[in-house]
Amino acid sequence: MLLKEKARERKKTGLFVVEGQREIRLALKGGYQLKTLLYNPNIIAAQGIETISGNASIEVIETTPQVYEKIAHRGTTEGVLAIAQSKPHSLNTLNIKQENPLILVAEAPEKPGNIGALLRTADAAKLDAVLIANPKTDLYNPNIIRSSVGSLFTNQVGLGNTEEIIHYLKNKGIKIFCAALSASKNYVDCDFTKASALVMGAEATGLSASWLENSDQNIIIPMQGEIDSMNVSVSAAILIFEAKRQRGF
Amino acid sequence: MLLKEKARERKKTGLFVVEGQREIRLALKGGYQLKTLLYNPNIIAAQGIETISGNASIEVIETTPQVYEKIAHRGTTEGVLAIAQSKPHSLNTLNIKQENPLILVAEAPEKPGNIGALLRTADAAKLDAVLIANPKTDLYNPNIIRSSVGSLFTNQVGLGNTEEIIHYLKNKGIKIFCAALSASKNYVDCDFTKASALVMGAEATGLSASWLENSDQNIIIPMQGEIDSMNVSVSAAILIFEAKRQRGF
Repeated sequence: MLLKEKARERKKTGLFVVEGQREIRLALKGGYQLKTLLYNPNIIAAQGIETISGNASIEVIETTPQVYEKIAHRGTTEGVLAIAQSKPHSLNTLNIKQENPLILVAEAPEKPGNIGALLRTADAAKLDAVLIANPKTDLYNPNIIRSSVGSLFTNQVGLGNTEEIIHYLKNKGIKIFCAALSASKNYVDCDFTKASALVMGAEATGLSASWLENSDQNIIIPMQGEIDSMNVSVSAAILIFEAKRQRGF
Repeated sequence: MLLKEKARERKKTGLFVVEGQREIRLALKGGYQLKTLLYNPNIIAAQGIETISGNASIEVIETTPQVYEKIAHRGTTEGVLAIAQSKPHSLNTLNIKQENPLILVAEAPEKPGNIGALLRTADAAKLDAVLIANPKTDLYNPNIIRSSVGSLFTNQVGLGNTEEIIHYLKNKGIKIFCAALSASKNYVDCDFTKASALVMGAEATGLSASWLENSDQNIIIPMQGEIDSMNVSVSAAILIFEAKRQRGF
């Protein structure tokens, strides 16, 4: 199935695949338009499909188990998948609240599993937006959808290059906190209660020079072990929830 | 290569495979005994091997690239692997400091990637120990070693069943904080400055009844999104670093 496997094909058509009941429900809740539902009647009953699609006018196709297994990424575990219309993710489509927004920026994250974990944390913290600078992976990659447990659809996600995002944040008066090793302040000594963007680089390379030049404050999580780094989604969560603590949740 | 693939074989012989220079160095630093180093001379020079093995009496074997690629898990990326002797991980072998230790307990974690991320965070926070209750995965699984970036070797890791670990903690007067949804207190309102164990269940099932019956305080990270859970390694990191904050790092 081309949509499942080829980022290029997803980009050309604007369509992508969502697999699993929970994920499909969250996509609908997030305002995504579904074109088609395909299901395997051996796994999920037709009534189950109706409760998923609700009143939305969605084409529903019953497949044979053989066909379903061929097109599904997760084989027989879910029983239903949807063809959905992607959303625009340019920065000017974002709707950010005026007062003290809290935003996560990830520059060039690579692993779908890490992006999924970032989105899960962002959802749990109800961040105002997740911005991905210089994205390296198609946002609708099935492994991102899967590892985000559908929270890809419940977050506001903006995509842009680093310069655009820096300009966007400065323009809105949002303070830029860069996770970095030099000239950095312990994150617990920083004030995240005002409009703040927490900016994370890739694990291997860190943030690009543009971010560091435009940083309002570099921040660091003090580490005391033999290894000098944590997983990027872990570090982001520690920073995000310190901000939440300061803001009284 | 049997050691690489079969947990049973690793258990029987007590031997396991460590791949990569960094990981091998950390294993040596962590007091692991290496039996044999195998390397691919096209990737890593013999001098490089000497700096890794140091003065330790380790058998060194140069392989052909073809053989190396067959036995290596990560193909051509590292160029060196070691056969190492596992350590005992029973609770009575642990050496925990008397004063206010901070311990992470994970019950039945399944995914090697999550266990690796937990170990990385534990290393960064210099936890006194990581205890795995009712382990479901062989600790020396190559994917755990890999995703821990070698921090498996720099942490004190104890294995046992849930009853044994509860008894161990109570016996030492270590307070049990269970991550749970019921009768739970916001984690930022708890005092983690005394001897504390942070106890995490599996993502799908949560903690078993024994833990909840023996909990001194259930704790929760308030979530405000559509998804009701975060990745287990992410949740653990948020709790661990709140404890670190309270302890002044």
